[in-house]
Parts: sequence; structure tokens; C-alpha cells
Amino acid sequence: MRFDPQDAQTLFKIMQWRRDVRHFDTTPLTEEDLDTLKMAFDLAPSVGNARPWRVIRVQSPDLRAKVRDEFERCNSDAATSYALTERSDYLKLKLQGLDQAPEQFCIFTATDPAEGRRLGRRTMPETLRQSTAMALHGLWLIARARNIGMGMVSILDPKRVESIFDCPPEWEFSAYLCLGYPQFTDDTPLLHRTGWQENTQARWEER
Amino acid sequence: MRFDPQDAQTLFKIMQWRRDVRHFDTTPLTEEDLDTLKMAFDLAPSVGNARPWRVIRVQSPDLRAKVRDEFERCNSDAATSYALTERSDYLKLKLQGLDQAPEQFCIFTATDPAEGRRLGRRTMPETLRQSTAMALHGLWLIARARNIGMGMVSILDPKRVESIFDCPPEWEFSAYLCLGYPQFTDDTPLLHRTGWQENTQARWEER
Repeated sequence: MRFDPQDAQTLFKIMQWRRDVRHFDTTPLTEEDLDTLKMAFDLAPSVGNARPWRVIRVQSPDLRAKVRDEFERCNSDAATSYALTERSDYLKLKLQGLDQAPEQFCIFTATDPAEGRRLGRRTMPETLRQSTAMALHGLWLIARARNIGMGMVSILDPKRVESIFDCPPEWEFSAYLCLGYPQFTDDTPLLHRTGWQENTQARWEER
Repeated sequence: MRFDPQDAQTLFKIMQWRRDVRHFDTTPLTEEDLDTLKMAFDLAPSVGNARPWRVIRVQSPDLRAKVRDEFERCNSDAATSYALTERSDYLKLKLQGLDQAPEQFCIFTATDPAEGRRLGRRTMPETLRQSTAMALHGLWLIARARNIGMGMVSILDPKRVESIFDCPPEWEFSAYLCLGYPQFTDDTPLLHRTGWQENTQARWEER
């Protein structure tokens, strides 16, 4: 199988227009959209082919409200950790779309799955979490290619989220995702646009 | 910016044909290839736009030999951890292409970069490592779209790799990568083909 330069260009364009979306339209995603998003997990790399991601599609208003409360708590704590001027900048940022996003997924990582037979993770258990992160990146790109926005919410206490979802002890919280059609598209990160953090060059050295 | 169904199909095909490559041709990559691979880091998502990845392009035969020795040590330990029949299966697997891969990158994650101003990582420092993992996944896809193979080597002790590269104390080892033109292409993971671990369905529940 050989790809041509046009295929690589398409991939670049999808990557360049992928954003962490926090402004959602409330229009529900279609069943076909959902099936396509699920494919991201089937196509993701994983250490020893262990496929350690565990996905909960969160529809219960009660569970959503608990996550929202937990975000508010952690976000207030985070704001307080900044000195006055920076705090005011921080509080102006919109960091999630929990109220509007029609689809929400809670993602966990199994910390010792039977699959993969421990291959490749003995000295680096971190590879299981890396596998989940790669699956989430694939999901982000597939969503973008389908003109769906995704936002990743990390201003949450992992232990509390695990307790909200009463998940098995061997599951570790990885991310809470908001998905839906975006209100606008942009090729530049919002944190760059708002002046919080501009893009910096990758640090690369040769030895 | 709107993508059409054809663009999404191209992305699916790249993801479906992305493999962890361990059989490399020794032909060097071109400078243009390298420039394209570097773009993966510029286009990757990161928590608070912190861009925590740190890349060393490893060309020194001495450094390469030290990594190779470290792999051998960890791989022997791993083999010993399996009971007899499984050990023999394990030892038949080719798990890296360190001797042939013309390009090798050692990837680290900065554990508290100034960039991003701590946004999004206060309760989840793991988001920095997730950012690096996502950048590596983007690199994998870009490489595949350019018909370049990439293999990720994790059978290494992170502390020893950090010491081999004498890296700053705030850098944490994330992965060692082999890159080059592959000897063959395949749409099915090698560990699946060899019977070590077949693909399993993503675990997905609704609540």
C-alpha cells in the first residue's frame, strides 16, 4: 500500500484544523457519526495490541451534572492558584463545553489488561496510558475529518471521577470528552488567539 | 473549513495501514522527509498549548549502541518473566528494528514547562505525557502517509535511558523511535498475525 502526496496533504490539513472545541451547537450527532467515532478505537495503536481504553458514553443528566460540579470545583481551585492579574486572564478563558456538548464520553485506561500478555509494558507501564492518549488523538482527527468538534476536559480530579462512575479499581481515569458540531472553525488554538500561550517551536536537538 | 467524505476516507486508510514497523530498509530518509516529520510536533495538541515534547535525533553510533544494549538487557528480563512455552513464543517475536532503522529519535516529556502556565494540568499532570503521546501518534500517521515506517521501542528502563542521554532532571523518557522505509506494508498488526494478541473489540458502555 502506497500513499500519494495528496493523501499526506489531506492529513496535514485535518491536523492543522483540529482544535480543542469548547463552543458547541446542541444538535445531536447522528448514529452514523457515532459509528465512525467508535472506529477510532479499533484503528488506534496500543502496546502489545492490549487495547487498554475503556469508554463510557455518558447520557445520564445526573452523571453529567456531577462531572460539571467537579469541573467547577477544580476550576475555582485552579483560578485561586494564580496571582491577581493572571487569575483575571484565567477566568476569562472558556475551558469546556459541558453544558452544550450533545455527546460526552468518559475515558479510562485498564492498568493491567490480560490482552497483550504484558508485552512491551514491563519496564514502562506508562505505555498503556500512552495507548489511550493515542486513541484519543485518533478520535480527535476522525471527528475533525467528519466536521465534528471534540474538547478534552482535564480540570477534574481523577479519583473523584473514578468515584462518580464507580468504576472497577483497575480502571484509571484518562479524560472526559465533549463532542458535537462546533459553532465555528479555526486553524489556530484558542489559547494562542486569546494570548494565554502562543505556539512555540518544538525543541529538537541532534546528537 | 469543511472536510468532505473523501478526506475522512483518506484518514481512515492511513490509520488502517499504520503499523509498528520493525523491518526497515537501510536507505536513509531525505531531508524533505525529516522536515515533514518535524511538522508532526507543530501540529500536535497539547495541554494549555504547553508543547512538552523534547526530541533528540540520535545519530551517534555510541548512543545507539547503548540503547541497543539496554534493549537487550530489558528484553532478556522480559523473556525470563514468562513460563517456558510462552517464553519461546516471546523470543520468536521481532520487537524492534534498532540495527537497521536509519533514523532514531529519543523522545522525552518536560514535566513542568513554563509554556501553558500550568493550565489544565494542575489536577492531572498526566496530561503532559498524554500530549507527547498524541504528538507521537501524529508522527506515526504523517510517517505512514509519506510511506515511512515507524516503530516505538518501550522495552527499555526509563531511568537508564535518561542517564544514557544525560538529560535535564525535568525531562522524563517517553519513547525511543525507529524510522525508515519499511521492508513491507500490512494492514494487520504483526502481533495479531503471529498469534500473540488478536484484535479485540473496544469496550464501550452507555450510562
